[in-house]
Amino acid sequence: MGFGFMKSKVTIRDVADAAGVSVTTVSQILNGKGKRFSKATQEKVFKVRDDLHYIPDFNAQNLIHRSSKMIGVLVPSIGNPFFSTFIKGILSVCRKERYVPLIFGADQAEDLERYYLESLIRRSVDGLIIASPTITPQTIDELLMPNKIPYIVLDQNPENNGDRVKVNDYQGGALVAEHLVQLGHKNIVMVLPNQMTENIHDRYLGFKNTLDKHGVKFDMADDVIHDDLSLEGGCHSVENILKKDPTAVFCANDELAIGVYRGMHERGIVIPDQISVIGYDNIDLDEYVTPKLTTISQPIRSIGETSAQLIIKRINHPNIGRQLVNMDVHLVVRESTEKV
Amino acid sequence: MGFGFMKSKVTIRDVADAAGVSVTTVSQILNGKGKRFSKATQEKVFKVRDDLHYIPDFNAQNLIHRSSKMIGVLVPSIGNPFFSTFIKGILSVCRKERYVPLIFGADQAEDLERYYLESLIRRSVDGLIIASPTITPQTIDELLMPNKIPYIVLDQNPENNGDRVKVNDYQGGALVAEHLVQLGHKNIVMVLPNQMTENIHDRYLGFKNTLDKHGVKFDMADDVIHDDLSLEGGCHSVENILKKDPTAVFCANDELAIGVYRGMHERGIVIPDQISVIGYDNIDLDEYVTPKLTTISQPIRSIGETSAQLIIKRINHPNIGRQLVNMDVHLVVRESTEKV
Repeated sequence: MGFGFMKSKVTIRDVADAAGVSVTTVSQILNGKGKRFSKATQEKVFKVRDDLHYIPDFNAQNLIHRSSKMIGVLVPSIGNPFFSTFIKGILSVCRKERYVPLIFGADQAEDLERYYLESLIRRSVDGLIIASPTITPQTIDELLMPNKIPYIVLDQNPENNGDRVKVNDYQGGALVAEHLVQLGHKNIVMVLPNQMTENIHDRYLGFKNTLDKHGVKFDMADDVIHDDLSLEGGCHSVENILKKDPTAVFCANDELAIGVYRGMHERGIVIPDQISVIGYDNIDLDEYVTPKLTTISQPIRSIGETSAQLIIKRINHPNIGRQLVNMDVHLVVRESTEKV
Repeated sequence: MGFGFMKSKVTIRDVADAAGVSVTTVSQILNGKGKRFSKATQEKVFKVRDDLHYIPDFNAQNLIHRSSKMIGVLVPSIGNPFFSTFIKGILSVCRKERYVPLIFGADQAEDLERYYLESLIRRSVDGLIIASPTITPQTIDELLMPNKIPYIVLDQNPENNGDRVKVNDYQGGALVAEHLVQLGHKNIVMVLPNQMTENIHDRYLGFKNTLDKHGVKFDMADDVIHDDLSLEGGCHSVENILKKDPTAVFCANDELAIGVYRGMHERGIVIPDQISVIGYDNIDLDEYVTPKLTTISQPIRSIGETSAQLIIKRINHPNIGRQLVNMDVHLVVRESTEKV
């Protein structure tokens, strides 16, 4: 690292001095308004800029344009493989549109999320993508509305009447039910998080209603286990799952399902011979665990790309009508589900 | 999201108007220099600030203080479980010190990393933590040095004479060798990435030198396979591993080792009965795969915390001497290694 000198960036003044012209001349040439200067002067300024590696200060431009070209992204956890793919989608669109995403994961600690939101507002972020279920409508009303920062909330906010990317979670739950019914399962447990966000609730509803249609008894009180949506939560949930003696388990996400694998293995239970397990998300890891995990594929990268596209459109056109994008999911049958 | 109105933050002018005082008065009171105003005026200004949810604009402060209170963090990949834990360590220190980290993963595409670095410099980032092996000394010389931005490079840069967090990778390689020799292994393959960063090279050296000491033949030409440090790379490497008919495989990281599990399973090879596998990093997943993965534990979160502490110290004290922190690793024996 470069220690031992004072911190100071190359400035427009340095470029002007080195090129032997005024700051105004440099500014006009670098901003594409240099036609009235000689070709030699223009070339000299560009060469000096390159030689000195001058990079214009965005914060000065920001104060003029009232845009930081930054988009804040708040996810529940950076380590969650779903969200790392989601972030990749956002990164790719931001790069194309020359925005810089500021990514935060607060592990659902609401005070930390509030701190990050405040930090982002202070830095004049142009828009926000909020993919954390912890942010309450109150926080949004208090922090975002008065500062008039456009935002997109993913999935979890039923009251939301703004721009929205909606994944068809009801369909996802229904597809799982159809698959398990076709395999002859009648005693099925679903593992859900303690905090029921709207998207997870839709999965539950699609699942339950489809089982009902096929005459398979299933309800929240008797057939649902609650635990963390994590490897650890999945492993921990197995004790409660087995009390209900099911032939199949529908896990609310893939990480949890892989935790269930571990808990089953420790009790000598073989998947899918003794019990079928199905996940949700289609993360990369699904193809590497044994047995490979049957799951619902969400278009994770597309969800990230679309969220970024919608927020950028909203930033540039604040007065257009509501933007709504619906996305379908599909079943990926692998090795963890089997006939009863 | 709040569409349908112009984007404009609550400004200090709004606070002044609502409180019926001047902008200067608001500025002085909110900056703790309000003693000369009446208690009533001070209280009114604070109340209006809270009612309007006024958040001072950091970019204006930034131009005055020449500090954005932002630290750029460049990792190879956000989805890599090692780096998501590393980032958590950085986040926790940044929060305590009231910095905001800007996190980027460019999947080792050098042009994308350069774009992010330029974006960060334009936004007056105060310092950089670079944990990507793709950044070349040339890029650093070209972009960072002229702009005099302090930075910390992790592990991979042998020429680096600046602040540094150094994990004892040589020791890690040596511990793996001792473990495998004790179990009686003599025919061992190591899987390394195509691009040999300094830290990985140290692991190799510690491993090779310790095997040499015990009279176990091992060299780069005959006993090393190169592949991607990923699940996919691990799975793909198995074909080449088996050609060498080893009794044990040392994988350069855990993700790769879990990919090796899959490749072995597809060929009906049982770990550790037929072949021992050992990883490196100690990511959460190691305890959930079957068999649980034997590995070297790096203090991943501490590495992140320490990197953030060093860069913040350097930002605030540009002229202190070189900061060096060495960190030890240790062996975690689980179920994937066994006697020959």
